Amino acid sequence: MSKTENNRLEEFRKDREEANEKILNLDHLGIKRFFNLDNNTYSDGALPAETKELLGLVASTVLRCNDCIDYHLEEAAKAGFSKEELVDALSVALTVGGSIVIPHLRHANETLEILEEEGTLDS
Amino acid sequence: MSKTENNRLEEFRKDREEANEKILNLDHLGIKRFFNLDNNTYSDGALPAETKELLGLVASTVLRCNDCIDYHLEEAAKAGFSKEELVDALSVALTVGGSIVIPHLRHANETLEILEEEGTLDS
Amino acid sequence: MSKTENNRLEEFRKDREEANEKILNLDHLGIKRFFNLDNNTYSDGALPAETKELLGLVASTVLRCNDCIDYHLEEAAKAGFSKEELVDALSVALTVGGSIVIPHLRHANETLEILEEEGTLDS
Amino acid sequence: MSKTENNRLEEFRKDREEANEKILNLDHLGIKRFFNLDNNTYSDGALPAETKELLGLVASTVLRCNDCIDYHLEEAAKAGFSKEELVDALSVALTVGGSIVIPHLRHANETLEILEEEGTLDS
Amino acid sequence: MSKTENNRLEEFRKDREEANEKILNLDHLGIKRFFNLDNNTYSDGALPAETKELLGLVASTVLRCNDCIDYHLEEAAKAGFSKEELVDALSVALTVGGSIVIPHLRHANETLEILEEEGTLDS
Amino acid sequence: MSKTENNRLEEFRKDREEANEKILNLDHLGIKRFFNLDNNTYSDGALPAETKELLGLVASTVLRCNDCIDYHLEEAAKAGFSKEELVDALSVALTVGGSIVIPHLRHANETLEILEEEGTLDS
Repeated sequence: MSKTENNRLEEFRKDREEANEKILNLDHLGIKRFFNLDNNTYSDGALPAETKELLGLVASTVLRCNDCIDYHLEEAAKAGFSKEELVDALSVALTVGGSIVIPHLRHANETLEILEEEGTLDS
Repeated sequence: MSKTENNRLEEFRKDREEANEKILNLDHLGIKRFFNLDNNTYSDGALPAETKELLGLVASTVLRCNDCIDYHLEEAAKAGFSKEELVDALSVALTVGGSIVIPHLRHANETLEILEEEGTLDS
Repeated sequence: MSKTENNRLEEFRKDREEANEKILNLDHLGIKRFFNLDNNTYSDGALPAETKELLGLVASTVLRCNDCIDYHLEEAAKAGFSKEELVDALSVALTVGGSIVIPHLRHANETLEILEEEGTLDS
Repeated sequence: MSKTENNRLEEFRKDREEANEKILNLDHLGIKRFFNLDNNTYSDGALPAETKELLGLVASTVLRCNDCIDYHLEEAAKAGFSKEELVDALSVALTVGGSIVIPHLRHANETLEILEEEGTLDS
Repeated sequence: MSKTENNRLEEFRKDREEANEKILNLDHLGIKRFFNLDNNTYSDGALPAETKELLGLVASTVLRCNDCIDYHLEEAAKAGFSKEELVDALSVALTVGGSIVIPHLRHANETLEILEEEGTLDS
Repeated sequence: MSKTENNRLEEFRKDREEANEKILNLDHLGIKRFFNLDNNTYSDGALPAETKELLGLVASTVLRCNDCIDYHLEEAAKAGFSKEELVDALSVALTVGGSIVIPHLRHANETLEILEEEGTLDS
């Protein structure tokens, strides 16, 4: 796969953004407030924003949600974590969550490769 | 509760250690290897050991395991995280895991108070 | 997507029905009894059938099962619930289940759009 | 158990209120916003508040959280649902969530008995 | 703990039986049918009943339900499995479910000790 | 589908093997040890290897992981279990895990058909 080829991450980003937009357009106050709260969760607080991305990544992995894993891997890569650091975070999720996590580890590793090819993740 | 009173954390530590000992005495190779792997998970790697304790804490919280929360809160406190930082980590678990996490947040906050009283956590 | 185009819901309905038929043809007494019990769960009792469809929808959403969400959204739409009511039910699932539910909310919202286009759901 | 005796529900209410108060006193903006959002979830919207309590009850049951079950059983009883209706809601959770839910059904049924004795639930 | 002392398993058995009786007395058809189906699940079929008890044990362990673990450990012990065999089954649950299962492994091991002392499990 | 046609199982096997290889090539000690431990879990111990494959199958089913279900169905078929026995094992998972397991039962049954067509499973 060349860098210029479309990849599943690009499609995911586009679909995710459009679908989130549609949800906000439902104009449900509780849902809109949840989305706002969710965005604010990963900003600087007592812990720096980047650490909280790692926490979101591991939480997503043990709860076995591929879309959430992809989102947090990308945000964590943008925040400057190296591949080795992200793999080390995923290893914690594997120990805590067990072998049932392995299919999601395979997915996450493929995402890491795409992020590397794109240049989003330093390799 | 005075500092010198027995507390539920002291009892948990003792019970946990004894029960883990009994499991190791079962002499099941796979289980012993898992326990060894588990211990090694939270040591320095590409990420520092203390960050991995935070990851273990958040994984335990979204998976809603009070014993695991208590263990990682104490280890993270010993690793030098402040109460504000630990609460910030727990806030990520709350957003990811939802209101079903709240009873475990109540438990975690009580544990933080005990750790403060004991002096294990700087307040 | 026009109303006459095939959509993923039509394919899901057909696949689901065929696959359920095959499971019943396995002729396993316990499984057949479970399927029968499952069907009867969503009929009038102390609570009306339509309320129980909403309960099934929210249970399916917090347990994060897209196929189950699609099934219950359609049944609830047929039972007369409006889009606003179904979105309000989903908002409860979001609060209880947390941000890990969001990818399933995106899926559910797309299903609602298909049901509207088909005329199954009043818009 | 006589009506005037202390019961586990009374203790739970008191502990829950105190522990929630302590969490709010942590003064973490994200957590305070989540608690506020959670409270607002169970108010009238496209669906009436009482229906949303039932949804919260079933979500809590399939996610197997006894504290959450107790809270929503009480709120639903106060909202006017009868014992038969609450049991019917719990039966949906049992079918969706399976036999692993049974211990929580035993807990919920005991809570229903306490609510009846107290007069919170019409019998 | 001497063999003649009351133990937590005896209390659990009594509480469980009484609470199940109360649930059946609610006279909810769906719930009664579920309980009947549940009982029949662990009887001879293509697989012998005892193998299905082991399956129930491992399912209960990865889903992290102590009451369910205790029930299936006892049934499996009565069906003739040795302590070594039950521990080997639990080791599969540990690998699949991860370190979050460990507190339940501690609980299960304590139950095994009680079953040995009682003579329910051959040691 | 003829026996010689490519099927989704063949693709899954190939993708799984390649992706696991890539994970091992990450050269993360903890992850490599976990993979090794996972492989050793399903070997003869106090219980025979084939029984442990059944346990892995049921654990995977109640935890609702299709990739894990496919893997264990194939291993259990190779170990000599008949279709009737595997369906009986899945019926335990259905009772324990509830109707939320049904989509995974549909998936598992389709996999059984492919394994039969391939001759991996005796029919």
